[in-house]
Amino acid sequence: MSIADSLAELFARIEAIGRTEQGGYRRFALTPEDEELREFFAAEVTSRGLRYEVDTAGNQWGWWQEGDGPAVVTGSHLDSVPDGGAFDGPLGVLSALLAIDELRGRGITPRRPIAVVSFTEEEGGRFPLACRGSRVLTGAVDAETVGELKDPAGTRLADALDGAELAADPELVSRIGAYVELHIEQGRNLATMGDQAIAVASAIWPHGRWRLQLSGVADHAGTTRLADRDDALIKAARIILAVREAAEQTGTLATVGALDVSPGAINAIPSGVELFIDARAETMAKLDDVIARITQAASSEGGDVHRISLTPETSFHPGLSHALAERCHAPLLATGAGHDAGILADAGVPATMLFVRNPTGVSHSPHEHAELTDCEAGVLALADCLEFLATAEQLP
Amino acid sequence: MSIADSLAELFARIEAIGRTEQGGYRRFALTPEDEELREFFAAEVTSRGLRYEVDTAGNQWGWWQEGDGPAVVTGSHLDSVPDGGAFDGPLGVLSALLAIDELRGRGITPRRPIAVVSFTEEEGGRFPLACRGSRVLTGAVDAETVGELKDPAGTRLADALDGAELAADPELVSRIGAYVELHIEQGRNLATMGDQAIAVASAIWPHGRWRLQLSGVADHAGTTRLADRDDALIKAARIILAVREAAEQTGTLATVGALDVSPGAINAIPSGVELFIDARAETMAKLDDVIARITQAASSEGGDVHRISLTPETSFHPGLSHALAERCHAPLLATGAGHDAGILADAGVPATMLFVRNPTGVSHSPHEHAELTDCEAGVLALADCLEFLATAEQLP
Repeated sequence: MSIADSLAELFARIEAIGRTEQGGYRRFALTPEDEELREFFAAEVTSRGLRYEVDTAGNQWGWWQEGDGPAVVTGSHLDSVPDGGAFDGPLGVLSALLAIDELRGRGITPRRPIAVVSFTEEEGGRFPLACRGSRVLTGAVDAETVGELKDPAGTRLADALDGAELAADPELVSRIGAYVELHIEQGRNLATMGDQAIAVASAIWPHGRWRLQLSGVADHAGTTRLADRDDALIKAARIILAVREAAEQTGTLATVGALDVSPGAINAIPSGVELFIDARAETMAKLDDVIARITQAASSEGGDVHRISLTPETSFHPGLSHALAERCHAPLLATGAGHDAGILADAGVPATMLFVRNPTGVSHSPHEHAELTDCEAGVLALADCLEFLATAEQLP
Repeated sequence: MSIADSLAELFARIEAIGRTEQGGYRRFALTPEDEELREFFAAEVTSRGLRYEVDTAGNQWGWWQEGDGPAVVTGSHLDSVPDGGAFDGPLGVLSALLAIDELRGRGITPRRPIAVVSFTEEEGGRFPLACRGSRVLTGAVDAETVGELKDPAGTRLADALDGAELAADPELVSRIGAYVELHIEQGRNLATMGDQAIAVASAIWPHGRWRLQLSGVADHAGTTRLADRDDALIKAARIILAVREAAEQTGTLATVGALDVSPGAINAIPSGVELFIDARAETMAKLDDVIARITQAASSEGGDVHRISLTPETSFHPGLSHALAERCHAPLLATGAGHDAGILADAGVPATMLFVRNPTGVSHSPHEHAELTDCEAGVLALADCLEFLATAEQLP
């Protein structure tokens, strides 16, 4: 079976899990869909003779235990944003499995262990923390604080875990000698570069999430004079437009993606609105600038801006990135999207990524798409990288 | 015990039911809170020797069966909007019970039956239809269609009813000879009228609810260029401001009270927004005008406006309203708020309302308040009205 056929077959095996009527996916942590995906991964690594284990942060691993010293690790995640596409995450996990098959087919003898990892809740689609699995594993966040996070229904993560561990494992992290994550590009850079199916990551833009709270006074929508109103949603509307304007003025990206209205009754004047803002920029100075403008707009509406998370620029390991780019004849590319590879890089793990061309640039949407031939090129490039890393006398 | 003390005591008995941390109430249909309130009502009417029954629409009745011919009915509702106040609804039900006590104390002999009614789900706080109990009872809406209504969790009303009836009862409606609903005023008209604790309703403004659907394209918030975006929430922000502007220009009330963002992830560009609009006006022409302006604004954003409900002006029974205003030395007052009394009036039942002064005008909020002395005046005025109606040779 060709790699393309094997990949199509693996995709088909998880196609129905969390599928929505619109053709997208809702694969959230610690749900029946998540459980199905975890069982799928466990079965796939076991059937390949890899040693299956779950780490203290809930991430799943399959170990090809050969040689000694720090391991070469590849993988990605299987969860999705609400109504996300098929590729963001799963392409990296499935490609990792097929790259192992390819290395086996090539008959290579690794000098060091190779592992495939599926990180848990990369998207923060249920509990509001992106890259939870890698952040907890590396100790980038305090596990106890993370356990207190609540999903939209008010369930604490610690309760949803139902006794499962939630802790860092610095020893495991220290055993990762190189991490390569394959991922669909979430933009159109490769598509505009002539005939390039693959790129190697150079850096992740600084990015973060902010929460903005606006207050009004609840009152009856059918009886309160316009002049007597203090409507939090009208303030929110002005802020939404101000966020876009601030992004335009600073040449950054800033988005209001989620919003909650209280009390949220058709006939009640909104007494409160909570806005969630995602912002990213090429440099930290530009990111500070856009957030300062948003904070000023919020304050003119009596609102407060609270930072939920902030990730400074992540530089992927230059030696590793350059070696792999040379090996794959691929260009280097920066990205605005956060990834577990970035969390590992921030924790000192030599890490980088392979991007697979996305013809429309659309991501986090049912319309996300990559051509199967490009995905096949991705698997082969990943296999080449893993072979190089597993057999090199020294890791870059 | 004084009427004020008795009223305080009745309020205290239901104070904890559905109470929120902010001091408001969440009392939604067919929930444990609703069940508690229904048990309270059944116990109160039974303890007063009234015959308890539930009609085919789920409304609760207590009958003082005397004399013959059409009955004099009073009551209101016990459910709330999300985070509503203590008075909107319960004040009318508790005052009805105390007015019965007052009539008993006066030793009157009714010429015709008197009944106290507690209408179910007046606020439409769970299933999206205000005045469900009175609308279903009078046949103003098709019961089968109503059964298909879904709550925010996707539960059908027909399923939530768990076998309970949902049907009109024209015969019961025809037995109502006069309906008087006491209610806290939801505005500051009485408060600005000198020393007037009570008013009698003249009319309810035409009012309705509309749903506005806006579309965008879901995409990754961290990678999609601003110029490539089609963000439904930015369109929604412009509409929210346009709705307010349209209300100002037409001298009407129009409010966006609820809003849903899809997919609603912090890092996804919104692909859809559903807005819910409440609009009211002194005349149908003005209401048409504001909705036409909103529809035009929506269409310039590629959005559609769908009418959920529309209630033309409701004139309360002029003979009844004037007779009671004279009896209570109270002014006549129009209101923008819908009520079960309005649904009954539209169904041909001679109906009107008594309003109790609201010093701040605040309603649908934990801060909703009426002075206990004004409430006592309300109970006495209601008792006067019921005595007059129950003992008059002919109903107005």
